[in-house]
Amino acid sequence: MAPHVQGGGVGGDENGRPEEVPLVHKVVVPPRGGVVKEVGHGLWETFLYDAPLQQFKGQSKRSKSWLGLKFVFPILSWITTYTPRMFASDFVAGLTIASLAVPQDLGYAKLANLPPVNGLYSSFVPPLIYAVLGSSRDIAIGPVAVVSLLLGTLLRQEVSPTKEPALYLQLAFTATFFAGLFQAALGFLRLGFVIQFLSHAAIVGFMAGAAVTIGLQQLKGLLNITNFTTSTDFISVMKSVFGKIDEWNWRSIVIGLAFLTFLVATKLIAKKKPKLFWISAIAPLTSVILATLFVFIFRVDKHGVKIVGHIPKGVNPPSAHKLMFSGTLVGAAARIGLIAGLIALTEGVAIGRTFAALRDYHIDGNKEMIAFGIMNICGSVTSCYVATGSFSRSAVNFQAGVKSAMANIVMSIVVLITLLWLTPLFKYTPNTILAAIIISAVLALIDLKAAWLIWKIDKFDFLATLGAFFGVFFISVEIGLLIAVCISFVKILFNVTRPHTARLGNIPGTNVYRNVQQYPDATLAPGIVAVRVDAAVYFSNSQYIEDKVLHYVEDEAARVAETGGKGVRYLIVDITPVTNIDTSGIIAFEELLKITRKRGIQLAFANPGSQVIQKFDTSGFLEQLGSEWVFFTVGEAVQVCSIMLNKSDAERSV
Amino acid sequence: MAPHVQGGGVGGDENGRPEEVPLVHKVVVPPRGGVVKEVGHGLWETFLYDAPLQQFKGQSKRSKSWLGLKFVFPILSWITTYTPRMFASDFVAGLTIASLAVPQDLGYAKLANLPPVNGLYSSFVPPLIYAVLGSSRDIAIGPVAVVSLLLGTLLRQEVSPTKEPALYLQLAFTATFFAGLFQAALGFLRLGFVIQFLSHAAIVGFMAGAAVTIGLQQLKGLLNITNFTTSTDFISVMKSVFGKIDEWNWRSIVIGLAFLTFLVATKLIAKKKPKLFWISAIAPLTSVILATLFVFIFRVDKHGVKIVGHIPKGVNPPSAHKLMFSGTLVGAAARIGLIAGLIALTEGVAIGRTFAALRDYHIDGNKEMIAFGIMNICGSVTSCYVATGSFSRSAVNFQAGVKSAMANIVMSIVVLITLLWLTPLFKYTPNTILAAIIISAVLALIDLKAAWLIWKIDKFDFLATLGAFFGVFFISVEIGLLIAVCISFVKILFNVTRPHTARLGNIPGTNVYRNVQQYPDATLAPGIVAVRVDAAVYFSNSQYIEDKVLHYVEDEAARVAETGGKGVRYLIVDITPVTNIDTSGIIAFEELLKITRKRGIQLAFANPGSQVIQKFDTSGFLEQLGSEWVFFTVGEAVQVCSIMLNKSDAERSV
Repeated sequence: MAPHVQGGGVGGDENGRPEEVPLVHKVVVPPRGGVVKEVGHGLWETFLYDAPLQQFKGQSKRSKSWLGLKFVFPILSWITTYTPRMFASDFVAGLTIASLAVPQDLGYAKLANLPPVNGLYSSFVPPLIYAVLGSSRDIAIGPVAVVSLLLGTLLRQEVSPTKEPALYLQLAFTATFFAGLFQAALGFLRLGFVIQFLSHAAIVGFMAGAAVTIGLQQLKGLLNITNFTTSTDFISVMKSVFGKIDEWNWRSIVIGLAFLTFLVATKLIAKKKPKLFWISAIAPLTSVILATLFVFIFRVDKHGVKIVGHIPKGVNPPSAHKLMFSGTLVGAAARIGLIAGLIALTEGVAIGRTFAALRDYHIDGNKEMIAFGIMNICGSVTSCYVATGSFSRSAVNFQAGVKSAMANIVMSIVVLITLLWLTPLFKYTPNTILAAIIISAVLALIDLKAAWLIWKIDKFDFLATLGAFFGVFFISVEIGLLIAVCISFVKILFNVTRPHTARLGNIPGTNVYRNVQQYPDATLAPGIVAVRVDAAVYFSNSQYIEDKVLHYVEDEAARVAETGGKGVRYLIVDITPVTNIDTSGIIAFEELLKITRKRGIQLAFANPGSQVIQKFDTSGFLEQLGSEWVFFTVGEAVQVCSIMLNKSDAERSV
Repeated sequence: MAPHVQGGGVGGDENGRPEEVPLVHKVVVPPRGGVVKEVGHGLWETFLYDAPLQQFKGQSKRSKSWLGLKFVFPILSWITTYTPRMFASDFVAGLTIASLAVPQDLGYAKLANLPPVNGLYSSFVPPLIYAVLGSSRDIAIGPVAVVSLLLGTLLRQEVSPTKEPALYLQLAFTATFFAGLFQAALGFLRLGFVIQFLSHAAIVGFMAGAAVTIGLQQLKGLLNITNFTTSTDFISVMKSVFGKIDEWNWRSIVIGLAFLTFLVATKLIAKKKPKLFWISAIAPLTSVILATLFVFIFRVDKHGVKIVGHIPKGVNPPSAHKLMFSGTLVGAAARIGLIAGLIALTEGVAIGRTFAALRDYHIDGNKEMIAFGIMNICGSVTSCYVATGSFSRSAVNFQAGVKSAMANIVMSIVVLITLLWLTPLFKYTPNTILAAIIISAVLALIDLKAAWLIWKIDKFDFLATLGAFFGVFFISVEIGLLIAVCISFVKILFNVTRPHTARLGNIPGTNVYRNVQQYPDATLAPGIVAVRVDAAVYFSNSQYIEDKVLHYVEDEAARVAETGGKGVRYLIVDITPVTNIDTSGIIAFEELLKITRKRGIQLAFANPGSQVIQKFDTSGFLEQLGSEWVFFTVGEAVQVCSIMLNKSDAERSV
């Protein structure tokens, strides 16, 4: 059965020149590397593929320790070349994001059912730590809306923030500690890729759902309702809103809506003319100042308009003694920390990567996770709750011309000044203005353009977006998250079980073989079927691949039978994209070999990768198949099969 | 920036003939199919890829209904052409498997903590139903060891079989009902691929662990111990065995070991000389007869040797009224049914497929699941517990020359005769002989050869095997199963996040581009980097792929810098194996484009599939990239880039 081809150029074109082009190429089995090398390679590719320590190679000891210090403290890589000019840019950017952060912090802390001052605390310590340990130049660190909402929802299920506020605070700090611990651990263990299991489509839906939910929650502040529902689903919120029309305060509504209109208008202006972004950047602080003055002068708080009230003065108090490492709530704190920490990472790392790509510098996701983790651990002992990178503030930071993480330090110092001396000024700030600021901030999280793109690109992905959105909208933020995760996993599993396969044909005039569905003019001699398998063959898809390949053969057999041909004689499987194979895959190919032999069809493989040919060899499959039936290219395989086919036809006719 | 190539043959060889071979090929964007077609195609590929209803196409109405009947009742496809000669073969095979089944059934029922007679019942009804509905000719249906053990372990956690035997029986029937329901539902919904999520490596480990555990459980019968542990882990069993040495009965041990030696010896003979397989096939029944006679004549039961005792005469009593569909145990029954049903399916479908491949006939996994499901539902209302295909009995069936499912009917009738008249004969059968039969039967489940092959092929897979084995061995059968499932999933997820990529080079003298690691003589002009991405680009791997591709560029840039070259100018990404892409993938490629532009590198893609080029187009990425930078083959891309490179070099030197 072995083909003995002595002539016929194969590599380049099929019209001759056998003396110039080599004959049929051999696919050699590469030498095996031994257990340690095999396992080592696998581990390397999974955990260290980006070679984080490559830069240390071949350096002197002194330079190695300096590189090591820079590796651990990225601040050292820019602070030595930092110029006053860069500082000027960072100063402006820092002031701008501080003016956004302060009013947002007060509102976000409320979303997490925490005192407003904890929001400010969380914009002081974490940005300082990040500036030393983080690699992103553009990110703005602090509390963010979605994590605050998620944390608030999860914490409230364990402890009531109104009945046991002290215990609630303890639980929040402990959860923050665990969030940091998990984040740092993921980074240290280089397991950062776990956050990639949440698909983009699911995140878009989840974020939009969370944004709408956060917006709806702000109706409490905007309408001045006292007894608002603690649920976050649409139905409960609507019941709360329309069940308590008598609590609505028209002054509050007027102030809120007026400034909301103003804020949204400035956003639209900034969108139309990016150069005017600073208008939308200073709008929130301006609104706070104006609204606070208005309340203070006209004392509308005496007419029921709720105000922020007293905020204690002073820098973050230590909170290490409040962390709970025993008792019934530790498990809950760890679970909440894990969920909030992962979502915070997803948002933070995505922001870092986005801006790094815009400005072409490198961010090591795992190192970022360590930075986020340490910053939250430090936060948890200084009365902060989970902080991460904020989408909206980072964008403003970037637009303001930030040059380095110094902007975070500037912001941090402004927040410190606020904490030390300015908190009394917020006493008369009406809650309704904070609500307006948060509504205008979270609008940016509703990414209709992304949703539209997802719909255009992939309908199933869009289902994930919708599922996550409606999960958050109608049930709760955690159920929405669960739906997002589940849909992401189901999608992975579907893709894993149903890999693509294609029937190949020769593009006329070339030696190229392509999917006949995509290139309808691609053809192949009757009696030969060429198929390409487009994925690694593993237990999860090996049976499907076997079935599918046989299906192509049966299709062709039926077609040949109709035209009165002689049936399928050769099956060529192009396994270029099959980068690896496991035992189930080998078994499936063995079954394929048995079945094709029974039917008098010769099986051949084209272009196996080194791992695959090695496994063919060690498993004994190569011997069963006959190594002469493994070809270098589909073209060579087809050529040999054609020669054999003509030869046997000629013999038969003699 | 657009290349305007007017000459240079590309398709076949690079040495000329531009007038014969076409110029640079266009990769056209195929027309979009609309929402319904897009979604429909995805659903079709997932659920109906094997086109189960294709045979109905273009048939007359009458022939359609006959085909339909045959589709629902596969028995009709062979019974009409059934010959007496075939019956002779099936009769012998049926008798043989019946002789194996009867003693095994008595023992397996004990593994499930059920009365021995329920084992016999389960070898009467289910095989009859399967013979009508199932497609496999070679499978032998009945209770099997691993499912019995699993069921026994799970049921005992809910209800004690000794304290509440009636309730235990009810729970067992209800679990069997649910097992059948789940099996049939999976088949009807064409979700049969879920059983493929258990990797071959994990199954090998799980089966071996279960076999050893079952063997250890038989020490109870072999040593004649009364108060045996209800745990199945190695430590507990050893404590039970050696803590109760005073209960050991030397007569029981001698009988058991003698027949175990006999049984194993016949197995070894059959293995050496496959023609003598019938010796090992009739050995168990022979042993039972001899041992029973021995006990009956010498009355060693009076010296403490435990015997099977009274087995009620008569056909399966109805048990529909014993099913529980309300109360606290329904949830447990459903859960147990799901687990046992899935394991039973995994074993049964694998057997069916294995023998179908050996004899080249087709088995539709989903249809088989419906057959298994209906057979277990029918079993649950006729006092049977979960039945499936038995590895050992199916192998004997095959060796005995079975021709059709008639063998199952013959076996079923033999079991019926046994139930009606012969059960009293088993009264004096010593438990020790059943233990010996089960030990010799489960030995076949320890597949050392497969384990050795797994070790050779993939070290990580072997870890899964070991994990599942030791999980069952040291903890319990369910924990072992859980470990097996988890390891399988982790493996899928690793593969999904870390797809293979390769740097390509040109094999000298050809137009073929290959992985430079596998073919070290493959080269490429300096300044051009060609990379192949070997998997569909989804959210789970898009960032890794982006990082990895950039890494290749940086590597080459470093290499070029050392040799004093001009740096990387072109990056060609071969996306032949990228069969699909989602929004995250598009975003990653957009980032790649931005970064390469920043660095003055031109990005090009080679050979996108139809879905990918369509998504490049709808997302607007194609426009950003410039459609002239999408090439038909890597060869064409390299050629164009080389021309551009030389041209700009020439311009620069002028």
